[in-house]
Amino acid sequence: MNDDAQNMLSAFLNINLKSISNNYQKISGMVMPAICAATVKADAYGLGLEQVALTLQKSGCKYFFVSDLSEGVRLRNIFGSNDNIIYALNGLKPSMTEEYIAFKITPVIGSPAELEEYYANTEENMENPIALHFDTGFSRLGFDGVEIDKLLIDRLNIDLIVSHLSTAEDIESNISENQLKQLLKYSDRFVGVKKTIANSAAIFRDKSFLLDMVRPGISLYCGYNGIESSNRLEPAIELYAPIIQVKDLKAGSTIGYGASYVAKKNTRIALVEFGYADGLPWSLKSTNQETGGQFYINDHAAPILGRVSMDIVAIDITKIKSDIKRGDFVEIIGSNQNIDTLAKNAGTISYEILTRLNSRVKKFYKYV
Amino acid sequence: MNDDAQNMLSAFLNINLKSISNNYQKISGMVMPAICAATVKADAYGLGLEQVALTLQKSGCKYFFVSDLSEGVRLRNIFGSNDNIIYALNGLKPSMTEEYIAFKITPVIGSPAELEEYYANTEENMENPIALHFDTGFSRLGFDGVEIDKLLIDRLNIDLIVSHLSTAEDIESNISENQLKQLLKYSDRFVGVKKTIANSAAIFRDKSFLLDMVRPGISLYCGYNGIESSNRLEPAIELYAPIIQVKDLKAGSTIGYGASYVAKKNTRIALVEFGYADGLPWSLKSTNQETGGQFYINDHAAPILGRVSMDIVAIDITKIKSDIKRGDFVEIIGSNQNIDTLAKNAGTISYEILTRLNSRVKKFYKYV
Repeated sequence: MNDDAQNMLSAFLNINLKSISNNYQKISGMVMPAICAATVKADAYGLGLEQVALTLQKSGCKYFFVSDLSEGVRLRNIFGSNDNIIYALNGLKPSMTEEYIAFKITPVIGSPAELEEYYANTEENMENPIALHFDTGFSRLGFDGVEIDKLLIDRLNIDLIVSHLSTAEDIESNISENQLKQLLKYSDRFVGVKKTIANSAAIFRDKSFLLDMVRPGISLYCGYNGIESSNRLEPAIELYAPIIQVKDLKAGSTIGYGASYVAKKNTRIALVEFGYADGLPWSLKSTNQETGGQFYINDHAAPILGRVSMDIVAIDITKIKSDIKRGDFVEIIGSNQNIDTLAKNAGTISYEILTRLNSRVKKFYKYV
Repeated sequence: MNDDAQNMLSAFLNINLKSISNNYQKISGMVMPAICAATVKADAYGLGLEQVALTLQKSGCKYFFVSDLSEGVRLRNIFGSNDNIIYALNGLKPSMTEEYIAFKITPVIGSPAELEEYYANTEENMENPIALHFDTGFSRLGFDGVEIDKLLIDRLNIDLIVSHLSTAEDIESNISENQLKQLLKYSDRFVGVKKTIANSAAIFRDKSFLLDMVRPGISLYCGYNGIESSNRLEPAIELYAPIIQVKDLKAGSTIGYGASYVAKKNTRIALVEFGYADGLPWSLKSTNQETGGQFYINDHAAPILGRVSMDIVAIDITKIKSDIKRGDFVEIIGSNQNIDTLAKNAGTISYEILTRLNSRVKKFYKYV
């Protein structure tokens, strides 16, 4: 069977590695002299760790953040060398210290329990670098202020101090500024140790957040649209799915599971082979009272009618004059609809949309 | 590295193939003399096509429904023989007729456009079986009544007539009975051709829906809890994730992204390594005004506090007296919480929860 031909008749995701490279280089230039690292956890936000990480490496990136040891080992094997620094954000997994050292994964240690275990297991390996995670008001991972003051750090090789911002995209709130202030206070006695707090949103928020290193993720991949200054970034993905049937419904017909949408007049629908098993949120459904998501055909909006099924969704093409037939593709993410709009209609965030795109969606990598 | 040890420190899904086999056999016995097929589309609802399909085959299943050609080819290769019948529900993909025939995938043809193409491409292969899809009020795939009456079927080898119910789980509605009546009317002139309309819910609704074949999906995998009579089925999955940090928060602390949850009193939280990139719906988040989802530790409920992150979520363990520490596992789906409860709290359906569990969640197959 011709794999390419078959692929082209299924939903597919175009990933433009050139755009990811361009975005990395733009941010990298913008933040200098701070180091521009990259956050590639969750399979590079669902876009494919191997292709994305190698692209970033070629673009000059040397510092990578993954979520845990398992992702770190995968990334180390992809690089095939120890030239890059890999940080595991979720800390030190129990009984695994040797593996972090063997694969040169730097654990971002964030609790007394982890540090104790690290001490106990590394008496002769204290030269291996670790990072420390400081909780500056996020209440997620990291040492709190009292714990930081008590830290016994003399014997450790601390490479980096990491903190996370909880609300960097909210320019009305000053929580981020307070978190930054906390970090600077907490890290006062860690002379000469690099510090990082900026995610994508913070990079565009204010230069004071750049510190020694920034850790963009979403902005590398699809453009972060929440903050105006990010307009310089390029969207890097397009998502299309095929129409598998076009049909004309009489007024009064119900559409889809739950029969929750009733056609008020004669309606032409296209059935698109893309459902929640592919990663389309079920919450994009519509009823007669409430609109849901929409797709695009030849730049015309086609609203979702009724519920999203596992493999299929119906869209309204009544008003689109061009000839639409089985085998045509509809745009789910592209020039007419960015990932943030789709996420907003689904009541979620763009990160969730990206990371849940299923393996059934074929990925095509371009570099143009 | 010890893969097993590492796996056990990540989120994992236990899939009990014995329960899936038992569920198949119970339903199969219940519906006799109707054939009990199995719906294994979307990688067997996310549980792993290979393991599930081979288990069902050993349990006596011969008829399998997948969504499209690509899934069908994968399943044919898993079986390694042509002993089983595989139906592709989404119809005939353009320019692919030869592939359906080569891999013995029976297309469920549902539109004049598909049938025309099939005719045009199979002049010498009309003995290959096809199925026909009748739309009886779902407005998804399938021929409508007018089209059915016009069908030129003399030269075709029609193996099965398929229809879908839109609201089989709603016992207050008689839409299903009307759909069944339509199917029987439409198929009147297809003498001797097998008919199927029943999904999991319809199997337990009324015997009149069983016809010649039933096509259970969700009921095989995790027990369908929407209809009482399904209590005879066994839940087949358990989902656990590890705690990576326990921390005590002072009253007034905000928790997680958006700082949307504020601890009203001193609170002990556990940070669980399981986020939306693993398949946990972002909509399980909570605020001080609105409760979200919950997990279980030693049979005690631990509510989610604040937003679900990509890789992590915080739960409230203040009231749980037992010693809880980093490395312990929490129950997300299991004896305390079935998949329907989790789905309901997330404002979605159990099917979506199942099919979106990410490849980062390790799967362990048991047969006990």
